[in-house]
Amino acid sequence: MSGSISPLAPKSYASMPALRGLRMATASAGIKYKNRTDVLMMVFDKPAAVAGVFTRSKCPSAAVDFCRANLPHGAARAVVVNSGNANAFTGLKGREATTLTAKSAATAVGCGENEVYLASTGVIGEPLDATKFSGVLDQMHKDATGDFWFEAAKAIMTTDTYPKVATRSAEIGGVKVAINGIAKGAGMIAPDMATMLSFVVTDADIAPAALQSLLSAGVDPTFNSMTVDSDTSTSDTLMLFATGAAAEDGQTRIESADDARLASFRAALNDLLRDLALQVVRDGEGATKMLEITVTGAESDAAAKKIALSIANSPLVKTAAAGEDANWGRIVMAVGKSGEMADRDRLAIWFGDVRVAVNGERDAGYSEEAATNVMRRQDIPVKVDIGLGNGTATVWTCDLTKEYVAINGDYRS
Amino acid sequence: MSGSISPLAPKSYASMPALRGLRMATASAGIKYKNRTDVLMMVFDKPAAVAGVFTRSKCPSAAVDFCRANLPHGAARAVVVNSGNANAFTGLKGREATTLTAKSAATAVGCGENEVYLASTGVIGEPLDATKFSGVLDQMHKDATGDFWFEAAKAIMTTDTYPKVATRSAEIGGVKVAINGIAKGAGMIAPDMATMLSFVVTDADIAPAALQSLLSAGVDPTFNSMTVDSDTSTSDTLMLFATGAAAEDGQTRIESADDARLASFRAALNDLLRDLALQVVRDGEGATKMLEITVTGAESDAAAKKIALSIANSPLVKTAAAGEDANWGRIVMAVGKSGEMADRDRLAIWFGDVRVAVNGERDAGYSEEAATNVMRRQDIPVKVDIGLGNGTATVWTCDLTKEYVAINGDYRS
Repeated sequence: MSGSISPLAPKSYASMPALRGLRMATASAGIKYKNRTDVLMMVFDKPAAVAGVFTRSKCPSAAVDFCRANLPHGAARAVVVNSGNANAFTGLKGREATTLTAKSAATAVGCGENEVYLASTGVIGEPLDATKFSGVLDQMHKDATGDFWFEAAKAIMTTDTYPKVATRSAEIGGVKVAINGIAKGAGMIAPDMATMLSFVVTDADIAPAALQSLLSAGVDPTFNSMTVDSDTSTSDTLMLFATGAAAEDGQTRIESADDARLASFRAALNDLLRDLALQVVRDGEGATKMLEITVTGAESDAAAKKIALSIANSPLVKTAAAGEDANWGRIVMAVGKSGEMADRDRLAIWFGDVRVAVNGERDAGYSEEAATNVMRRQDIPVKVDIGLGNGTATVWTCDLTKEYVAINGDYRS
Repeated sequence: MSGSISPLAPKSYASMPALRGLRMATASAGIKYKNRTDVLMMVFDKPAAVAGVFTRSKCPSAAVDFCRANLPHGAARAVVVNSGNANAFTGLKGREATTLTAKSAATAVGCGENEVYLASTGVIGEPLDATKFSGVLDQMHKDATGDFWFEAAKAIMTTDTYPKVATRSAEIGGVKVAINGIAKGAGMIAPDMATMLSFVVTDADIAPAALQSLLSAGVDPTFNSMTVDSDTSTSDTLMLFATGAAAEDGQTRIESADDARLASFRAALNDLLRDLALQVVRDGEGATKMLEITVTGAESDAAAKKIALSIANSPLVKTAAAGEDANWGRIVMAVGKSGEMADRDRLAIWFGDVRVAVNGERDAGYSEEAATNVMRRQDIPVKVDIGLGNGTATVWTCDLTKEYVAINGDYRS
């Protein structure tokens, strides 16, 4: 495992303001190692509205099952995130561990167990000893403080080489609201080591159903449009909480996602989700390049996204990027294997502004040198026009390097 | 690109007998380089029955289009295979090149253009100068000889580290028949360098429709059940020819694939296809391990195959294999992301004979050392029981190593 920071890491980190209605603390519960920070607790002073989207895996972790079951209740008082043990593929013991953790958190905070949310990353298949949380959570609840975002982002890192934070502000009906978020993830999944988790909190006053609509719509062009290695975690979790503290400033509660006053908030939220998602791609295991792949002219937006992901997940496209090789033949291959409608004789392909292929042939005016210059950049825009319809999509990925193989092949041995 | 032979290469090669009714020759046509063998010609003395299966890519090469168009005619007199230029993504010029090549071959052999079959591998997007074939094919037709299988297999190699040959015998109605085949391929696709091609010939007398049924049924559990890197070529081609020479020994022509006399032939053909397919996997770019992944207990055979391919194509499963890591958590992940029905609490997983997980939990009796010993082998059997139904499938793949990244990342630069 490399100890160095991704070359694609942000040059500077956002200064993260405290967010009204939320306090956080970290601690060492000794889940896997002694004296290592392995628990993050988020505490909402009053019940916060809550929304969540989770892994589509058919084998989700016990924590994902637990969160899904609590969501219809719509209110959150505490979030407990642990590293060192994913509590996935742990059967009945896994469910017992989530129950016990929720009980400990509920006792510490003084709330119902259905107001607790859980996320776990780490070794899978290993029973999680949830008794370790009991005393710890009490103390964390007492210690929790508002100005703690950066520390929280660091606490949930695994193979990440940098903490992922983002903040935005928006207005609702003239009242200023804030949105803060953190994320972790470097492989989309690598059981025992990495998984994608993200927690976003706003002080806006928004009802759970509206919050869920905003989040579900926002995740598709952001977190669900990026891929590091095509492998989907059993534990992927993205949650959005609304503390409602902005009501003190006169913000009227938003009940519906269709409310016109949400325009600014929706834009800021989507921008923040995109920011966090791109930070995850840019920390992709072994990454040296970020590829932004835009597909236009597909039969539908869904078809465009399937083609774009076929390109983004192709090992041959990703190794070519690592080699700074403007290998558009591999793009053609990936379009062809996607299964979506494509007419070879209408395809056009660009690296940056350099059109390398058009009408199913190499572009006569194409300069290999110009294309290679684009490939030498850290951020490489790739555009493919299918020439059939109006469907478009943009997805992000990173290159596939020997370092990725080293991180994932040398890990447990 | 590594110059060494795959550690998984066969310890010895089959001795390939001549096959009645077929002659072959190789030559240098100067397609990409001077003085390098780059054309293989197969000539059938009399029209052979023909069947073919081709890439499912939506962007197939001009040669694939050409073969598909000729197949309904059902008879073959000549096959021309060139390396150095894939004639893929070459638009109208690509079609002109296939027409001209077919014309040259038809003139040389004295047959119709619809009795010619073509396959090309090499650079994509580069127009193929088919005029280079004209004089060459005449001479090849004159030089063609029967005892040439091993040379033919070597002539079509690209990133392959060893030639792929196989031979079987069978009987039809008491008459002995032979089946010979060659294949090439090391990446499922790597435009500019590699693609999967295979040509199989029998001296049995079998009508085209029956031959096509046999081939279409045979390809699913063999060539379509292996993956090196999940990338599908624009040029994948598998063809089966029947010269009918066994009629001289009294074999009665087979008109239907349902004919009971085909039992021995079908078994031999499928065994040969499996042999060639496994040789391709074992020569996977950078491979040091071969994984045989068997899924049982899925809802259907199709579901089992989708789950098996999800495991076989997972970069994290493949890098774990390279690291000799019995990382069954990544198997759970790959089952979960397949999209097929799976119940975490019924899953069981084996490496070789070592059951590592059962009923959705780590197997209590599981020995990490025993599992690691299995991972140290060159050939690693992985078995997953879904516990839901009777669907089964077996697929083959290889590990993902730094050498794969080197071969495909360093290639054009």
